[in-house]
Amino acid sequence: MAKSQDQAVVTAVKRAKEAGFSAPLAWERYEAQLPQCGFGELGLCCRHCLQGPCRIDPFGEGAQCGVCGATADVMVARGVARAVAGGAASHAGHAKHVAHTLLRAARGEAPDYPVRDATKLKAVAEKIGVAAAGRAAEAVAQEVAEKALVEFSEREAPLSWTLATLPAQRIATLKRLGLLPYGVDSAISEVLHRTTYGVDADPVNILLGAVKCAVADYTACHIATDLSDILFGTPAPVVARANLGVIKKDAVNIALHGHNPLLSDILVQVAAEPELAAKAKAAGAPAGINLVGICCTGNEVLMRHGIPLATSSVSQETAILTGAVEAMVVDYQCVMPALASVAECYHTQLITTMPIAKISGARHFEFDEAAAKETARQIIETAIEAFRRRDPAKINIPDFSYPAVAGFSAEAVVGALARVDSTDPLKPLLDNIVAGNIAGVCLFAGCNTVKVAQDANYLAMVKELVRNNVLILCTGCAAGSFARHGLMRPEATEEYAGPGLRAVLKAVGEAAGLGGPLPLVLHLGSCVDNSRAVDIAVAVAKKLDVDLDKLPVVASAPEPVTEKAVAIGTWAVALGIPTHVGVVPPVLGSPAVTQFLTAGVKDLLGGYFIAETDPLKAAAALLAAIGERRRALGLPA
Amino acid sequence: MAKSQDQAVVTAVKRAKEAGFSAPLAWERYEAQLPQCGFGELGLCCRHCLQGPCRIDPFGEGAQCGVCGATADVMVARGVARAVAGGAASHAGHAKHVAHTLLRAARGEAPDYPVRDATKLKAVAEKIGVAAAGRAAEAVAQEVAEKALVEFSEREAPLSWTLATLPAQRIATLKRLGLLPYGVDSAISEVLHRTTYGVDADPVNILLGAVKCAVADYTACHIATDLSDILFGTPAPVVARANLGVIKKDAVNIALHGHNPLLSDILVQVAAEPELAAKAKAAGAPAGINLVGICCTGNEVLMRHGIPLATSSVSQETAILTGAVEAMVVDYQCVMPALASVAECYHTQLITTMPIAKISGARHFEFDEAAAKETARQIIETAIEAFRRRDPAKINIPDFSYPAVAGFSAEAVVGALARVDSTDPLKPLLDNIVAGNIAGVCLFAGCNTVKVAQDANYLAMVKELVRNNVLILCTGCAAGSFARHGLMRPEATEEYAGPGLRAVLKAVGEAAGLGGPLPLVLHLGSCVDNSRAVDIAVAVAKKLDVDLDKLPVVASAPEPVTEKAVAIGTWAVALGIPTHVGVVPPVLGSPAVTQFLTAGVKDLLGGYFIAETDPLKAAAALLAAIGERRRALGLPA
Repeated sequence: MAKSQDQAVVTAVKRAKEAGFSAPLAWERYEAQLPQCGFGELGLCCRHCLQGPCRIDPFGEGAQCGVCGATADVMVARGVARAVAGGAASHAGHAKHVAHTLLRAARGEAPDYPVRDATKLKAVAEKIGVAAAGRAAEAVAQEVAEKALVEFSEREAPLSWTLATLPAQRIATLKRLGLLPYGVDSAISEVLHRTTYGVDADPVNILLGAVKCAVADYTACHIATDLSDILFGTPAPVVARANLGVIKKDAVNIALHGHNPLLSDILVQVAAEPELAAKAKAAGAPAGINLVGICCTGNEVLMRHGIPLATSSVSQETAILTGAVEAMVVDYQCVMPALASVAECYHTQLITTMPIAKISGARHFEFDEAAAKETARQIIETAIEAFRRRDPAKINIPDFSYPAVAGFSAEAVVGALARVDSTDPLKPLLDNIVAGNIAGVCLFAGCNTVKVAQDANYLAMVKELVRNNVLILCTGCAAGSFARHGLMRPEATEEYAGPGLRAVLKAVGEAAGLGGPLPLVLHLGSCVDNSRAVDIAVAVAKKLDVDLDKLPVVASAPEPVTEKAVAIGTWAVALGIPTHVGVVPPVLGSPAVTQFLTAGVKDLLGGYFIAETDPLKAAAALLAAIGERRRALGLPA
Repeated sequence: MAKSQDQAVVTAVKRAKEAGFSAPLAWERYEAQLPQCGFGELGLCCRHCLQGPCRIDPFGEGAQCGVCGATADVMVARGVARAVAGGAASHAGHAKHVAHTLLRAARGEAPDYPVRDATKLKAVAEKIGVAAAGRAAEAVAQEVAEKALVEFSEREAPLSWTLATLPAQRIATLKRLGLLPYGVDSAISEVLHRTTYGVDADPVNILLGAVKCAVADYTACHIATDLSDILFGTPAPVVARANLGVIKKDAVNIALHGHNPLLSDILVQVAAEPELAAKAKAAGAPAGINLVGICCTGNEVLMRHGIPLATSSVSQETAILTGAVEAMVVDYQCVMPALASVAECYHTQLITTMPIAKISGARHFEFDEAAAKETARQIIETAIEAFRRRDPAKINIPDFSYPAVAGFSAEAVVGALARVDSTDPLKPLLDNIVAGNIAGVCLFAGCNTVKVAQDANYLAMVKELVRNNVLILCTGCAAGSFARHGLMRPEATEEYAGPGLRAVLKAVGEAAGLGGPLPLVLHLGSCVDNSRAVDIAVAVAKKLDVDLDKLPVVASAPEPVTEKAVAIGTWAVALGIPTHVGVVPPVLGSPAVTQFLTAGVKDLLGGYFIAETDPLKAAAALLAAIGERRRALGLPA
C-alpha cells in the first residue's frame, strides 16, 4: 500500500487497486527489496574494480579491508564522492543543455527560443563580466552562453559563476582549502579518477574532492537557473493549484515530468494554439488540453506559467493511475523506469524525448531545439489521439487540490521587499531577523522517498519551524510537497506561522499588493533553483559583510533520494550551511567519515551535516543551529 | 599464500612469511573476502540513489526490479557504463596532467620540462592541424597543449585527436551511431548523468553511451602518449631487466610506482646526479642509487630510460617484502592502499606525491611541476636517509630477473620495418600477413588479478598464440608479465614462436641491427600506450584502405582489474577489435547486456567481447576471430 501522507495519493492508489490494477508501485517494489543489503546501507561494499565486489564486516569479525586494502573509511568516502559526482553530472548535463540552446538561439539556429528576459540577460552578463550595454541581445546572449559552456571545461582558473555569486570571504575560504573547481566536468572527472582503484586512499582527502565537486555542482545549478530565466523569463509570483485533482476528467491531460524547461516550456506555448485545442475538443475533450506538471519540470512550468502541479517524486506513478493522463512526457532525472509498466495498464502514452534518457517500453520523440515547436505539436497530437482510447471506467481522479502561490525567484523576493522599502529592499528582512521576528531561514529541498511516509518529514518539520518563526524557502519536490498540502497558501500563514513570522509575511504580502500575507513557504523553483536561495542569502551576507556561515540560515532535505540531493547537500555544507538529511546516507560504516561530515567539516567550512530521521528532533537541531548563529551575531536567540 | 606463477613473487612471499611477516597480502585479503557477494558479481545491485541499495534476485524468485523499476538489464548496463567512465576519468586526469605540464613548460613556468622530442612535437602538431614549420618549439608546444586541453571540454564538434588518429571509415561508423564524443570530460559526465536515478532506462542506449565514453577514453590515452613523448622522448628499443632480482642489496633502491611519467622521469634524471650517488655511498650503499619500476610508471621509465622493472600489479607489495626498498614513490592509479601497512613492517618509506592521491599512513611530498627536480631530490634524500635504517636481517631479494627488450613505440616498429624496406616500411608486415607467415596480431593489455594465479592466463595464451604465428603487442602489466617471465628476449622468439612468426621476427631483428630476432612480444609501453597499438593498426588499415574491423587484429586482457581496463576493452570493441577478457565482469546478471556486449555490438561496430576464463579456450577463440577476418579478406587461414 502507498506509504503517503498525501490523501490524493492514497486515494488514487486505493481506488486503482480496487479496480484491479496489480502492477507494483514504488512502495511495493521497496517492500520486495526488504531487507536491503546491510553492507550497501552502511556504504561498506565496493565494486570499483574487477577484484571485487569487496565488503567490510561492520562487526569487526570478517574482512576489515578490500582486496586492495581499502578500509571502511576509504570505501565510504569513495561512495559519497561518487554520489556527489553523479549529482553534479546531472546538473551539468542540464545546465549545458540550456547553454547550448541559448547559444544556438543566439545564432539563429533555434528560432523557438527568443530571449524572453532581456533584463536578466543583462544582469547575468554583467555579473560574469560580459559587456551588455548598447549591444544586441543576441550578441550578448551568445557571449554569455559561450562563457557558460567554458565553465564546464578544463580551465586554469576558478569559474566565473562561482566567483561572481559567492561572498569574497567564502571564495577565500574555498580557495585556501583548494576547493574552488577549475571546471565543472573536470571536477566530476577528477572525483571519478581519485575514487578508482588505487588512487586516493585518504578519506578526508577524498571527501574534500567531493566538496570541490559539489561547489562545481552549485555552479552548474546557478548557470542552469540563470540561463533558463533568460530564455523563459524570471519567475514572479503566480497562483496555480497542486495535487492530483488538477487532472481534468474532460480534458486531454498531458503530464510534463523531469527537470528541464527546454521542451516543457515549448509544450506550454504550443498547447495554447487554438488549432490544438480544437483538435482536442473534436476528439471528445470539451475542456481541451490540460497540461500538468510532475517533479521539477512541473516546477519550471508552474513558476513561469502557472501550470498546475499534479504530483511529485515518489508518487509520480499515481498520475497515471488517475486513468485520465493521455501522455506523460519526460525529459530526464527522477523518471522512474517503472512508469512504462504502469502506463501499459492504461491508455497513457509514456513519451521520452531526450537521446540520453530512453525507457524500454516508452515511445521516443527525439527532441531537437531547432524544431522544438514541431516536436511539441507531435507530442500533443499523440496525446489527443490517445484520448480516444481512454477507458472511462478507469477514471480515478481524487478530488484533492490546493491553490499554491509560487514563483519566488530571488528577484521576486527582493521585488516584494522593495514594496516595503524601495531604497533598501533587504532592510525589512534584516531588521526583522535582527529583531527576532524572523528567527532564521530554512531552505527545504529534495525528494520524497519510499523510506519515509511521503511528506511526513516535510510536514512535521515545517510546522515546527514556522511555529518558531523560521522563514521557509523551498524548491524541487520539497516545494511540491508543501504545494500539495496547501502550505503555499496565504491561509496557511495565518494558521501555522509563529507571531513574528506571520506579521512579517503579512506586512510584505500586503505591501506587495497580494491582498494578504505571503504564503507560509516561498517556492523558489526547481532543484537547480536552490541557487536562488543562495542568491538571497548572499545578498544578506554581503549587506552585513559577513560570510554565509555566520547567517542564521539552515537547509534540510528531509526525504532525499537522488545523487543530486547528495551533491546539493554537500554544496550547502561547502557554503557554510548546517544541512539536515532525513534519510541516513550510506556512511555509517565509517565512523571517521560520519564524524567528518557531521562535525569535522564544520571547522573547515562552517557548514556540516545533521543526519536525523526523526522530524521533530531534526527541527530542534535546526533551531539549535539557528540559535547558535544568532548568538554568535549577538542577536536575541 | 601468493597465487602467482612468478617464482620471484612466490619466493619473496614465502621467505617473508618464514621470517615473521604477518600482514595480509592481496591474495589473503581476497581469501578474506570469499565468498564475494553474488549480487555484486552479477552486476545486480544498485546504489545510485538513497532508496537503495536494491538487488535483483538472479533466480527469478525475489525482486525483479529496483525501487525505481530499474530491471536487471538497466542495473547491469549502468554498472558497465560507470566503470567505463571511471576508467576514462583516470586516463583523462593523466592526460590533462601532462597537457598542463607541457603548457606550463612552453610558457617557461616549468623549466624542468624542455621539449625533448621536437620530431614528435612536429608530427603531433601536424596531425591535429597546428602549424609547426618555422616556429619555435615553445610556441608549437603551447598551441598543441592548449588544443589538447580543449579536447576535454564541452565542444560543439568531435575531437581533433579522435578524427586525426582513426581511419575515415571508422569515424563514419562512429558518427552514424552517435558515438563520437564532443569532449572527454563531457562524455564522462554524460555517462554519470544518464546512469543516475531516473535518467536512461534503455540498456542498449546506456551501453552506447558507455561506448561513446570509451572512444573519449581512447582519445585521452592517445593525448597522454603523444604529449609524454614530446616531453620525454619517443621510446626506441632498449634493453633492461625485469623481476624482483633487479632490486640491489648494495644500493639505495627506490621503486617508482603508478602511471604518470611526470615525476618519475624527473626522478630518473635527478638520480643520475653525482652528488646524490655520493650521498648514497656515504650512507653505506656502494652501488649508489638504484631506481626500479612498478606497474605503468615502471613501463614509462623502462621504455625511455631502461630502468628495470621490479614487479607489477597484484604483486606490487612484494617489492617491499624484499626488505631492500628504501622508498616506494607513487603517483596514481593501481596503487594499493595496503602498501602503507606493508611498508610499516619495514624501513620502506611509502611516498605519495599527487594531491588527488594520498594514502593514510604514507608520507606526502606534494609534487609541483614548477619545482619538479627539487621535489625529486627531496624524495631521493629521504630514501637515502631510510637506507640507514634498513634491517639487513630482512633482506629477501629473490635472485630472479630476465633481460627484456622494450621501447616499441609505433615509430620504433615502423623504424625497424624500414630497415627491411625503407621506401615502404609497412610492406614487409603486410606481405607476411598476406602470406600467412603472420596469422594476425594480438594486443595483450591489462593487469594481474587475485582471481587468476598471477600471469597464468598471459603465459598460457601467449604461448598458444605465438605457436600459431600471431604477432604479439603488449602494454601495461601485460607487458610486465611477459618481461618478468623472459618473453621479451630474442631467445624466447627462438623457443616459442611458430615458424612463420619466427622467420619474420628474425628477419626484421637482423635487418634492424639487433643481431638476432625481435623479442617474442613487442612492449609498446604503458596502459595509455595502447594508443600506440592503434597507430600501428591504423597505419595498416589505411594502407589497405579498409576499416579496422576488417583486420586480423584482436586484443586480450586476460587478467583485468581496473575500470581503466574496462574502458580500454570497450574502446577496442568500438574500434572494431574482437576483445577477450579473462575475468568475467559483472554483467552475467543481464543476459541482454551480455548478449549485446558479446554479439549484438558486432553488428554495429565489428568488435565484440569474448569473455572466457580458460586461457586455452580464449586463445582458440582469438585464433578463430583472426581466421574469420582472414577469410573475409580472402587470405589463407
